[in-house]
Amino acid sequence: MLAVLRLGHRVGRDVRITTHICLAARAMGADKVFLSGEKDESIIKSIGGVVKRWGGKFEVEYRKDWRSVMKSWKGKTVHLTMYGEPLNDRIGVLRKEKDLLVIVGAEKVPSEVYKNADFNVSVSGQPHSEVAALAVFLDRFFEGKELEKRFPKAKLRIVPQAHGKQIDANV
Amino acid sequence: MLAVLRLGHRVGRDVRITTHICLAARAMGADKVFLSGEKDESIIKSIGGVVKRWGGKFEVEYRKDWRSVMKSWKGKTVHLTMYGEPLNDRIGVLRKEKDLLVIVGAEKVPSEVYKNADFNVSVSGQPHSEVAALAVFLDRFFEGKELEKRFPKAKLRIVPQAHGKQIDANV
Repeated sequence: MLAVLRLGHRVGRDVRITTHICLAARAMGADKVFLSGEKDESIIKSIGGVVKRWGGKFEVEYRKDWRSVMKSWKGKTVHLTMYGEPLNDRIGVLRKEKDLLVIVGAEKVPSEVYKNADFNVSVSGQPHSEVAALAVFLDRFFEGKELEKRFPKAKLRIVPQAHGKQIDANV
Repeated sequence: MLAVLRLGHRVGRDVRITTHICLAARAMGADKVFLSGEKDESIIKSIGGVVKRWGGKFEVEYRKDWRSVMKSWKGKTVHLTMYGEPLNDRIGVLRKEKDLLVIVGAEKVPSEVYKNADFNVSVSGQPHSEVAALAVFLDRFFEGKELEKRFPKAKLRIVPQAHGKQIDANV
């Protein structure tokens, strides 16, 4: 089980970034996203629609109390932050974990997250994007195999093309 | 030279996603982003501020005529799209290119991009995020070494920590 905890969602301002986090998490092998911050049914609904059309078992769950998500998590927790230890140094150890909670924050992450996460890991020590950091983390964690994942019960499936588009419907 | 061409930016709606694209491009080793679509000085200014504080030579340039950016590019062009050929199959060939233009679209990409790009490559055939796709592409292209890149003339630099935050100012 690999889950993502998205902290500090703000309705309106963060809709697209949080949606990208959920979609990237699903596409790149995560099982679940816990959303925290302001409750936003629109995201849960839109990701539900993607799962229905594109298959797989991915789910999104809103949890007001993100502390309880961290506390009750059975495995290790890793917080992605530019202040953390380099991904290149830590990914080998993290890859051995069976149940991992990957925490991505919004603008201001409470200091207790830095303190209580088992690992704080940076995907470069430069300011960039929690979507980018999460995607690279997942690609490294699953060693690129996530890109070949088949999503069961898909109604739509891409047939890869050198040029142009092809979708199989009702596969 | 590795540059990114961002198609179809819309003022307001796309500000944060396009900003994340620029920041991820910079953090993960790209030299430049060409922005197209609606002109948006706020992004060019905010990324300029990041470069001033965090160093390096990265630049963002607005080009209304994205076709001319593609046409005049000296090296190969690769369009990231869920409809393309799998990254795992193509990254080996692409990694040999010295000058690469990586094209990322907004919602509706004109069919001539699919037709005229030298490569159309998918970072998973699932719907997700152009920020995520770009980040994974760059990490694969630079084989993870981009995460250790030093940015010359930085005023700020992170000192990696297992827990907590440390920034060196005026390094």
